[in-house]
Amino acid sequence: MKILIAGVDGYLGWSLAQYLTARGHEVAGADIFFRRQWVEELNSWSAVPIAPIEERLQAFKEHFGTKLHFWQGDLRDYAFVEQILREFQPEAIVHLGECPSAPYSMIDVSHAVFVQTNNITTTFNLLFGIRDICPQTHLVKLGTMGEYGTPNTDIPEGFFEIEYNGRLDRFPFPRQAGSWYHWSKVHGSNNIMFACKIWNLRATDIMQGVVFGTRIDEMGDDQRLLTRLDFDQAFGTVINRFCCQAVIGHPLTVYGQGSQKRGFLTLKDSMHCLTLAVENPPDVGEYRVFNQFANVFSITELALKVQRIAQNLGWDVKVCHLENPRHELNEHYYNPTHQHLLDLGYCPTHDVEAEISIMLQDLWKYRDRIRANKEILIPEFRWNGTKKKVKFLD
Amino acid sequence: MKILIAGVDGYLGWSLAQYLTARGHEVAGADIFFRRQWVEELNSWSAVPIAPIEERLQAFKEHFGTKLHFWQGDLRDYAFVEQILREFQPEAIVHLGECPSAPYSMIDVSHAVFVQTNNITTTFNLLFGIRDICPQTHLVKLGTMGEYGTPNTDIPEGFFEIEYNGRLDRFPFPRQAGSWYHWSKVHGSNNIMFACKIWNLRATDIMQGVVFGTRIDEMGDDQRLLTRLDFDQAFGTVINRFCCQAVIGHPLTVYGQGSQKRGFLTLKDSMHCLTLAVENPPDVGEYRVFNQFANVFSITELALKVQRIAQNLGWDVKVCHLENPRHELNEHYYNPTHQHLLDLGYCPTHDVEAEISIMLQDLWKYRDRIRANKEILIPEFRWNGTKKKVKFLD
Repeated sequence: MKILIAGVDGYLGWSLAQYLTARGHEVAGADIFFRRQWVEELNSWSAVPIAPIEERLQAFKEHFGTKLHFWQGDLRDYAFVEQILREFQPEAIVHLGECPSAPYSMIDVSHAVFVQTNNITTTFNLLFGIRDICPQTHLVKLGTMGEYGTPNTDIPEGFFEIEYNGRLDRFPFPRQAGSWYHWSKVHGSNNIMFACKIWNLRATDIMQGVVFGTRIDEMGDDQRLLTRLDFDQAFGTVINRFCCQAVIGHPLTVYGQGSQKRGFLTLKDSMHCLTLAVENPPDVGEYRVFNQFANVFSITELALKVQRIAQNLGWDVKVCHLENPRHELNEHYYNPTHQHLLDLGYCPTHDVEAEISIMLQDLWKYRDRIRANKEILIPEFRWNGTKKKVKFLD
Repeated sequence: MKILIAGVDGYLGWSLAQYLTARGHEVAGADIFFRRQWVEELNSWSAVPIAPIEERLQAFKEHFGTKLHFWQGDLRDYAFVEQILREFQPEAIVHLGECPSAPYSMIDVSHAVFVQTNNITTTFNLLFGIRDICPQTHLVKLGTMGEYGTPNTDIPEGFFEIEYNGRLDRFPFPRQAGSWYHWSKVHGSNNIMFACKIWNLRATDIMQGVVFGTRIDEMGDDQRLLTRLDFDQAFGTVINRFCCQAVIGHPLTVYGQGSQKRGFLTLKDSMHCLTLAVENPPDVGEYRVFNQFANVFSITELALKVQRIAQNLGWDVKVCHLENPRHELNEHYYNPTHQHLLDLGYCPTHDVEAEISIMLQDLWKYRDRIRANKEILIPEFRWNGTKKKVKFLD
């Protein structure tokens, strides 16, 4: 299939280009390198060194024996999106071209506005481009499990049927997101659902859990093919950050009590799931929602896992609790469904320990890069609007 | 009270400034005259001639004996919002500074992007400004009954308690809006709900029905105090448009079969309701939703009402059905609650006929202005993305 990856230079995008190409798909990508800029803006860098795009594309060609079609430009510019769709005529578009950070969106008014307008505009441009240029194209859009929040009921996949005052209807499951970023994903989900309804487009909206991992097999040994791995407060997600802390002997920093639960999956699983979505498109006019994760853990459970595996490697690391910079429930019910991907053949990686062990060994090589910026491991962007490093609770 | 009206030059804003001032409040307003520009862009104009802002402000001072504080500028510019809040320190802000047109948002990609990013950004700027400058200020935000769509159940005011898979929770009622504009209001509602939660702000989110009417008593006989009344396909709402058609003997154009039902209220009622919201603020940290309308009618019922009243005035007008340019259900259940405003003392105007009669007599004076642009009465912006005048069905 011909597949376009919007945001191909990012953590997931760069991995996915390789995963799909290795499976025989013809892949194209677009990027304007915002992710590199955002991390620089926060005075940080990827723990895993990443090559400039020219080197990445060269390595890609050498390794996979085929060219990655690449367009450099801003997906907020409709003319740019039009050009790509006309030239490449993709059968599927995986939309990773959004700003994916909750803390980044909470910095101040300009960051909140940027994240929401960027994410809304890129999605609009893809929707209108599909409508007008390639209406059969399947849009696979990255949302987040964070759209749902932590309600006191089960969480279905996007929709549920309920009775209210004696009458039945099928509704979108109410979203209760936890940051301006997470709400931008809700806004996007709502817009895509409506576009499918009025224009007969087809889309898969992926409510993804937190992804962790340093590599996928397809990258082989070529350093230029490695994907980024961030450890700063805004773009470093929780397991990745814990592993970076472990390799430099820094305490693993749990926000608050750590009883908050989330869905998680490995980078490899994320690639597998996205591929299943792409290779099994919905019908024309269908808007479907996949909850995409392998396991649910509490944050403290994860910290203890990383600590134990580090101990097996001979490293002694503490688990510490920090003031929680976020506004989130600590104790809560959490039971999200995730049946659709299993039905398509997804076999989740339940051996999280094995994956963490690989990560720790990968990151060991880059410990100097992490140690050189260890201050960034303690968050300062708080949901209440202040900017001040949080304190250790114990 | 000190009340700031964002979007004070519009249909509701200009009326509200007068209504609140007549009740003894100290009113300020901000505007950049986008509404005048949008209507011009569509090659149309207000049926009721409206004065330039300088004349409006002069008439305001003469009539009410007090100055209307006015700032000209773009509410998407945070520095502008900051300046106003610092200088005026409002106790309440009524946010009417959004683009209010469904058809306008459906024109093409640039209009969709403009409407959603404009509406999101202005609301963000007000929320952050309140948080940082005047955290006690009550935000009264105009949403729309159209956020809910037409579900097969009752519609509560914003929230409902339901059981799902044997567990209970209170949720935001799922929104199923019907245009990019309506979705922009949903996005705004979600953002405001979240801001109240994390920053302890107070807000009233008004799910308003369709407003109709040419005047409120406070305007007296001064032509410069009259508010605009649009009749074009994008900014002319249904009853206002029917009345403009009636005074020039044009058929009243019902979209589709006309069985679709909506909530309606007079301009005077809208002013009364907004004032009740302002004068009875919620607690700090409270986000509340008011469904604001007086009566539910089908579109055909309204056309027949306007036809009958026109007949009483000796004018013979037909009711015709057009292809529906929108994507909406024709036959549907519709039972929205609207108790909160009644509890605050709102007495709805149920005598819609009396109001329509006043409107027809008001608009009779301006029939030449309407006749000069009668082509604009037939819509061409279609929800499927094409632009082509719709046909008469009978």
